[in-house]
Amino acid sequence: MNEPRTVDFFFDVGSPYSYLAATQLDGLTARTGAAVRWRPFLLGGVFKATGNEMPARVPAKARYMVADLERWASHYDQPFRFPTRFPLNTLRPQRALTAVAMADEGAVRAFALALFRGYWVDDRDISADDEIRSIAHGCDLDGDHVVAATGDPAVKDRLRAETDDAVARGAFGAPTFFLGATMYWGNDRLLLLEQDLAS
Amino acid sequence: MNEPRTVDFFFDVGSPYSYLAATQLDGLTARTGAAVRWRPFLLGGVFKATGNEMPARVPAKARYMVADLERWASHYDQPFRFPTRFPLNTLRPQRALTAVAMADEGAVRAFALALFRGYWVDDRDISADDEIRSIAHGCDLDGDHVVAATGDPAVKDRLRAETDDAVARGAFGAPTFFLGATMYWGNDRLLLLEQDLAS
Repeated sequence: MNEPRTVDFFFDVGSPYSYLAATQLDGLTARTGAAVRWRPFLLGGVFKATGNEMPARVPAKARYMVADLERWASHYDQPFRFPTRFPLNTLRPQRALTAVAMADEGAVRAFALALFRGYWVDDRDISADDEIRSIAHGCDLDGDHVVAATGDPAVKDRLRAETDDAVARGAFGAPTFFLGATMYWGNDRLLLLEQDLAS
Repeated sequence: MNEPRTVDFFFDVGSPYSYLAATQLDGLTARTGAAVRWRPFLLGGVFKATGNEMPARVPAKARYMVADLERWASHYDQPFRFPTRFPLNTLRPQRALTAVAMADEGAVRAFALALFRGYWVDDRDISADDEIRSIAHGCDLDGDHVVAATGDPAVKDRLRAETDDAVARGAFGAPTFFLGATMYWGNDRLLLLEQDLAS
């Protein structure tokens, strides 16, 4: 195949494994030539639709997860600090990302990486309008406009539709990748995704 | 470090990711020089103790799991066929493995691999005494003795104690590896375990 292939990357900035995966996507595109569509969805909506639950519901799993996340961050040589507010209601940042995606899909990547970093490295409360505005501004976006757009019914509808689309294709968690009809769940499946892109 | 390091491998033959991981351990020991202790435990007991549940409880996750398992099997170049009986009550084969471990720890690996293959490749009902006897016999073990030992109170106690030990160290699923106090959950964490063994 010589045509560039496109990977759908469904993510929620409240998901730590989404953060870890997001840090690896520039490398993935550089090595494989694939394009990545950054598609914000609402993980809470996915859990509700599928009957899945956050892994941290099981105390032993939550304890392991913190160690596992630190290990992956070190493996990737990426900064990571478990935030003081967790879990976070990510409805507002996910709507802000959706608003940006509707205006200019190419602008989502930088804004998402900045939100991820705000939450998973700098311990900022990215559910707050002030933080969303400031992070948007740092990405050369109109922060006031982005925050205002989170109240736009078309933005709310789009975020719901993206979430529904992911669920209809089989998603039950985050991050979730699709290459055509093939689904890859989790940061740890990037390995298999990259193999499939190389084949 | 020049001393050979020992990895504890807690597994249940009813767990497909335990099967996949088990196929990789000869390679791991060859590449790292580490020793592996094959420690049968009871995954149902782990779930009960931790409040965790089998991933197949969520229908979307169950569907994904089948595809994911086939992908890993292909990645490892190992045979795999999802069994017609799933989940299976593995109390009897796990007790049989425990009996073998108590008599000769070095004999567990071959017997476990044969049970895994019986269930995850050849679709045999490895919860049945006849199958356990026949598979034990194929491993040059005394099949009648192994089956009889599954009723031995000391064997039952030992399996419970192994399960309790894993839970006390943080386990909530299978397979679970320990290198010293560090826990690795899942076939997909073999990568990080091997890195730690090499460092």
